[in-house]
Amino acid sequence: MKTDTARAEILAVLQSIQRAHRDKNARAVTAHYEPNAVIFDLAPPLAHGIDSKGLQTWLDKWKGPVDRAIRDFDVAVSDDLAFGHGYLQLEATTQEGEAVSFWMRAIVCLKRVNGVWKIVHDHTSVPFYMDGSFKPAFDLKP
Amino acid sequence: MKTDTARAEILAVLQSIQRAHRDKNARAVTAHYEPNAVIFDLAPPLAHGIDSKGLQTWLDKWKGPVDRAIRDFDVAVSDDLAFGHGYLQLEATTQEGEAVSFWMRAIVCLKRVNGVWKIVHDHTSVPFYMDGSFKPAFDLKP
Repeated sequence: MKTDTARAEILAVLQSIQRAHRDKNARAVTAHYEPNAVIFDLAPPLAHGIDSKGLQTWLDKWKGPVDRAIRDFDVAVSDDLAFGHGYLQLEATTQEGEAVSFWMRAIVCLKRVNGVWKIVHDHTSVPFYMDGSFKPAFDLKP
Repeated sequence: MKTDTARAEILAVLQSIQRAHRDKNARAVTAHYEPNAVIFDLAPPLAHGIDSKGLQTWLDKWKGPVDRAIRDFDVAVSDDLAFGHGYLQLEATTQEGEAVSFWMRAIVCLKRVNGVWKIVHDHTSVPFYMDGSFKPAFDLKP
């Protein structure tokens, strides 16, 4: 399979995950992960596995859709292994009506299993200010 | 080349970076990176390139060696592409004599260039508490 095809397939996975967030469908997100995937997420713990129930609870906390726009994803592929890195913009509204919007960095690592790209690891984070405040840098833009 | 050999070579890269931190030798760290590497670091900005000078300044801020122990790195390889994820424990002492120690998560993505593994992306972070404090979770252990 050509690298360009693989890249397009992997971007389609990311777009499907974006749609699933918008639709607040946690199972449609986790369907793109290998069962033993290791996830480094914004919130503790340091690492967790697939947790459809926890993700559904988180999605349902927001009022209306949860957007997760994809920007500047650079994907590298070799046979059945791939990784990509780029930016995700989380945009959602709290139940109290407060609009939340910030950019995260993300690296996604995938394996092709029975012809389908599955995420085996991903790592999403926001850097924090080392000015003594230790606040997450929610104001950065890519 | 066998996958086990490649894995050993990649772990040797991580160990060399650990030694270079201990020796406070920024150039010996960045020698393991591709010139156009994209780094997602603990501190802002969202992404930066190789910055030996900035890393040297940061290393020199600490009193004595900077340790960066490696734990549970899981590496996947296909031909000249690889990624690995695991934990790094930063241990260092401030000029004021305060001991700092916390665990980070890290994903490292590599390409083999002229037979040598070079880091093309890496992503190091600490999750933050979503309890309203937004504090980095420096107290977590893998």
